[in-house]
Amino acid sequence: MNLVIVGLGAIGGSFAMRLMKQGYDRIVGVDIDEETLQLALDKGYIHEGTTSPEHVIAEADIVLLTLYPGQIASFIDENKDHFKQGAVITDVTGVKTSLIRDVERLLPDHVDFIFAHPMRGSEKKGIAGAEESKFKEANALITPVSSNKEENIKKVEQLYKDAGFKTITRVMPEQHDEQIAYVSQLMHALSVSVVNSTQASPDTLLFAGNSFKELTRIADINEELWAELFSMNKDALLDSITCFEEQLDVFKNALVNTNEEELKDFLKKARLQRKKWY
Amino acid sequence: MNLVIVGLGAIGGSFAMRLMKQGYDRIVGVDIDEETLQLALDKGYIHEGTTSPEHVIAEADIVLLTLYPGQIASFIDENKDHFKQGAVITDVTGVKTSLIRDVERLLPDHVDFIFAHPMRGSEKKGIAGAEESKFKEANALITPVSSNKEENIKKVEQLYKDAGFKTITRVMPEQHDEQIAYVSQLMHALSVSVVNSTQASPDTLLFAGNSFKELTRIADINEELWAELFSMNKDALLDSITCFEEQLDVFKNALVNTNEEELKDFLKKARLQRKKWY
Repeated sequence: MNLVIVGLGAIGGSFAMRLMKQGYDRIVGVDIDEETLQLALDKGYIHEGTTSPEHVIAEADIVLLTLYPGQIASFIDENKDHFKQGAVITDVTGVKTSLIRDVERLLPDHVDFIFAHPMRGSEKKGIAGAEESKFKEANALITPVSSNKEENIKKVEQLYKDAGFKTITRVMPEQHDEQIAYVSQLMHALSVSVVNSTQASPDTLLFAGNSFKELTRIADINEELWAELFSMNKDALLDSITCFEEQLDVFKNALVNTNEEELKDFLKKARLQRKKWY
Repeated sequence: MNLVIVGLGAIGGSFAMRLMKQGYDRIVGVDIDEETLQLALDKGYIHEGTTSPEHVIAEADIVLLTLYPGQIASFIDENKDHFKQGAVITDVTGVKTSLIRDVERLLPDHVDFIFAHPMRGSEKKGIAGAEESKFKEANALITPVSSNKEENIKKVEQLYKDAGFKTITRVMPEQHDEQIAYVSQLMHALSVSVVNSTQASPDTLLFAGNSFKELTRIADINEELWAELFSMNKDALLDSITCFEEQLDVFKNALVNTNEEELKDFLKKARLQRKKWY
């Protein structure tokens, strides 16, 4: 099996490291950065590295694209004549419906694109952020489309299992984007808004405990990537913000009215729901 | 030195465990629950336990009140004739200005109340949540008032050092409450509002990564305690929510206008500020 990973950043690099250890026959890395390729070769993450995808893609059984969201469709467009007959292409993008729409327009008939989302991010950019155990116990989502062949979905599921993922779930693209807006994008929007508050100061940490540290961790964000992801999922994210604001308003109103019983009910409801989850 | 701890919950119990290991001469626990007292005695957290504070308070050099915020003033009122001449009283309440106002009205002249705030919470209620190392590396704040004697502030600082705290900082009560509204109370308000969103469902965890787990951890909240704390700090907390909402609106507007440059600037600003802190 010939695997080509396009983009040896923190995510692509982690796939390479782990799958190499799993004994994959052939892993080829594609990256625009020569130093990254050399490092990946020197450290034994890949069997071969190149800055020109055309030749290696012609041999690939699976093409794993770990590019920025906005690069996926253009990569398909530029390489559509190079893919091998029956090749499986897959991505790692955190938003699905708009990407699927853009890619399906361009995709040649002789390949099958399995859209996937490994749910483990990285604060570190580039191959320096790659870790062999990055995906250990992580979850992943696959959003099948009608043209996908079952055997190809299974190939991507196996790739994820080999990379260390625990649970790989199939969901509808629309449900994916709605839920990701809530559980991931909204968290990032809240975190950056907290950090950008005019109350932030050099003294802040004198007062801060674990909750502030944890809640603001994800404000250390890759702005290029996330500006794209937020824009791609604009409607769902705005809905999630609205649903959140409705609840914050309930809290505020109870507070404005110094209604301690209503405050307690609101807090208790949250406590019970949190306990159901974890 | 004779220390009386009033309230052997997660906080009071943790102080007792640790200070006993530090070799304190005499630690007396006061609690309304007989079983708690028996457990604390059996496990060697205290030298003596009682449900009636009057007698033991008459002997106390330091009285550490780990009661609910609303119980502090009434405890002082009920026991004001029992305190020893020159006794130091201290508390662990997370909000200061309103408490100081209530307590100063009632406090007899022969004692000194040093208002303090150990910044390490507990998700577990009661003595079952006590841990010897709970305060290891934690921060604490002391909010001196004009009547406090320097030697007594130092006694409480020493008590905190002995309990394992790393940094004990003196701040003005008003600054304390403003900053706590931002770094702690706002975090809790956001967390419970996220969990109470109508988007929450049994499927949520299929989609959730670390950020959701971390951000919602503090939604597992003691509603009795926090409803009191929020109400006591209502104005400062409403100000913090407003400052946060202003920033969330900047984010939303950039998103509505699909202004990726503005989104990137906003995210980058947060990233740089977060890096300054941690």
